Amino acid sequence: LTVADRSRAALDQLRPRVSGDLREVDLSDPARVHELAREHDLVVGAVPASMGFATLRAVLEAGRHAVDISFLEQDALALDDLARSKGVVAVVDAGVSPGLSNLILGHVQSVGQVSRYTCYVGGLPEDRSGLLQYKAPFSPADVIEVYTRPARYKENGEVVTAPALVGIEELDVPGVGVLEGFVTDGLRTLLAEESIPEMRELTLRYPGHAAQMRLLNELGLFDTDPLEVDGATVSPRALTAQLLFPHWEFAPGEPDLTVLRVEVDVVAEGQVERHVYEMVDRYDEVTGTSSMGRTTGYTCTAVVRLVAGGHYAAVGVSPPERVGRAAGCFDRIVADLAERGVVLRHSVEPISAGEET
Amino acid sequence: LTVADRSRAALDQLRPRVSGDLREVDLSDPARVHELAREHDLVVGAVPASMGFATLRAVLEAGRHAVDISFLEQDALALDDLARSKGVVAVVDAGVSPGLSNLILGHVQSVGQVSRYTCYVGGLPEDRSGLLQYKAPFSPADVIEVYTRPARYKENGEVVTAPALVGIEELDVPGVGVLEGFVTDGLRTLLAEESIPEMRELTLRYPGHAAQMRLLNELGLFDTDPLEVDGATVSPRALTAQLLFPHWEFAPGEPDLTVLRVEVDVVAEGQVERHVYEMVDRYDEVTGTSSMGRTTGYTCTAVVRLVAGGHYAAVGVSPPERVGRAAGCFDRIVADLAERGVVLRHSVEPISAGEET
Repeated sequence: LTVADRSRAALDQLRPRVSGDLREVDLSDPARVHELAREHDLVVGAVPASMGFATLRAVLEAGRHAVDISFLEQDALALDDLARSKGVVAVVDAGVSPGLSNLILGHVQSVGQVSRYTCYVGGLPEDRSGLLQYKAPFSPADVIEVYTRPARYKENGEVVTAPALVGIEELDVPGVGVLEGFVTDGLRTLLAEESIPEMRELTLRYPGHAAQMRLLNELGLFDTDPLEVDGATVSPRALTAQLLFPHWEFAPGEPDLTVLRVEVDVVAEGQVERHVYEMVDRYDEVTGTSSMGRTTGYTCTAVVRLVAGGHYAAVGVSPPERVGRAAGCFDRIVADLAERGVVLRHSVEPISAGEET
Repeated sequence: LTVADRSRAALDQLRPRVSGDLREVDLSDPARVHELAREHDLVVGAVPASMGFATLRAVLEAGRHAVDISFLEQDALALDDLARSKGVVAVVDAGVSPGLSNLILGHVQSVGQVSRYTCYVGGLPEDRSGLLQYKAPFSPADVIEVYTRPARYKENGEVVTAPALVGIEELDVPGVGVLEGFVTDGLRTLLAEESIPEMRELTLRYPGHAAQMRLLNELGLFDTDPLEVDGATVSPRALTAQLLFPHWEFAPGEPDLTVLRVEVDVVAEGQVERHVYEMVDRYDEVTGTSSMGRTTGYTCTAVVRLVAGGHYAAVGVSPPERVGRAAGCFDRIVADLAERGVVLRHSVEPISAGEET
């Protein structure tokens, strides 16, 4: 096992916890990625979204299997031909959502025709006091993207685009309380699932947060176009981020939690059934591992075990829904997660056609 | 009558409506103010808050009566000796609040010992749609001051300071609906009323606005200290104001409204009585006069008539509560306002000591 990062300080933090080689490498250079990949059988990509595509390409060009959680900015399927030509397996978006949510959908698709898919997902601080009732468990710049990018979802078989942060609905999560969900642009590869007419991803926050972010967004405080202010030229988003990010930082050892609820309506034997998968995961006090780290990392390593063990061997670039559709894969991932205390509860409720709409 | 302003465009706008001399004068030069004052018997000061004190001093040095609505940044009572030495009458803060609210308090003080004073006041757009449900009927920079300055009020005889925009309470205003009020630093000269143990001024907005402004304030977006952002130096408030002010602008002819509710508890003959004064004033469609202009301007000109007619002749600088205490003055002002359609409704309700606290 080799862990590579540009930052020596980041590697030093890992040293007591990782038995393997820790290497200082500038991964923004694809030649270095290629070189490093050649030394290994499988590469996990966990780099900033903007670097994700070039990194994955370098790994595939080196002819190595890849599992990625970089939330690539570009469409990973554009690398499908490359992966096929090298005869390697690449699974992208292998985190929570995208990731686990896609695996669930793929798995349920083996039960019958899916008529509706709804994914609620959020990473939150346990402590909801504070001005924003929120802290960012991953890149805060990416969180601003979530709040500004128009949301794409599917309605009546059509892809619909809505402004960010509108259409807020409530979700009562046992053990957590009432959260608010708003549609975000997180379906990614799922938008291509032509057979499913209704699909939405909603991001979860403590109630009130969306209105705050909507205010900042609609005032233009998240705009990236530079503005002239008293003779100086400044990006409103850069200034806002500078003031916002300190509020979004978890204190060392501060507990977070991750909520995932996926509802998949399936038509089976003429009946509509709703498959509900629920997960509430919390910070691990013993190892000091964040819940976002646990749920993203353990899903990713469960996929790594599938690929490394030859249980998932579809050559090419696979989104996780494809992995979920492959026989036995989903159950292995769920068992792997459960072993690490990440529990996905499954229930099925019959619903009438009236209720469904 | 002479109207003086630095801006020819502003004077030109007045020309069809004012029978008098319109003069282009730079009033930031006290020598020019002094000169102009010498030509007249009484001067109304309606300049930016930052220019108010120097302008009033120039008028008093010229030995002329003054009525001011500039919301002076400095303490006008520091000019009391000057006004006395010149034998002239100066009434400051002669608008709505400060202004009419102080006149009401002064008037009720003649009934008995005041134990509590609460003033609710707000200028709002009639149309509450829009991101902020608010438009600024006066200087938007002064509105930001209202949202940022710590609030001072009196509790148990002590002056208490609280952060801006906290302690929101609801007020149901007949004909307007439920508004929210939050304590603001608007008591000014009233803080010196030693005999009244409980005093608060609350600013009124449509519900939700205070939380929005509190967010901007607590994030630091109203801070005036310059921040370095990507190499440029910028005041967060300057940037925020640039994005905020277009939202706060009334469209030409857009109706505003002004709400004032003053509650004064009086101990009279061993009983506690609550005197309530209520005003809801609206935009004048016929003359195109804003409600904020009507209520501020007509209170001011009512005071001008008192002074010019010799009905209020107390030499020195008077805050309006002092005018309210002078026999007959309040009734004249109320009648003057009513003639112009600004109606102040008065009611008295007996309250028990228990209810009062």
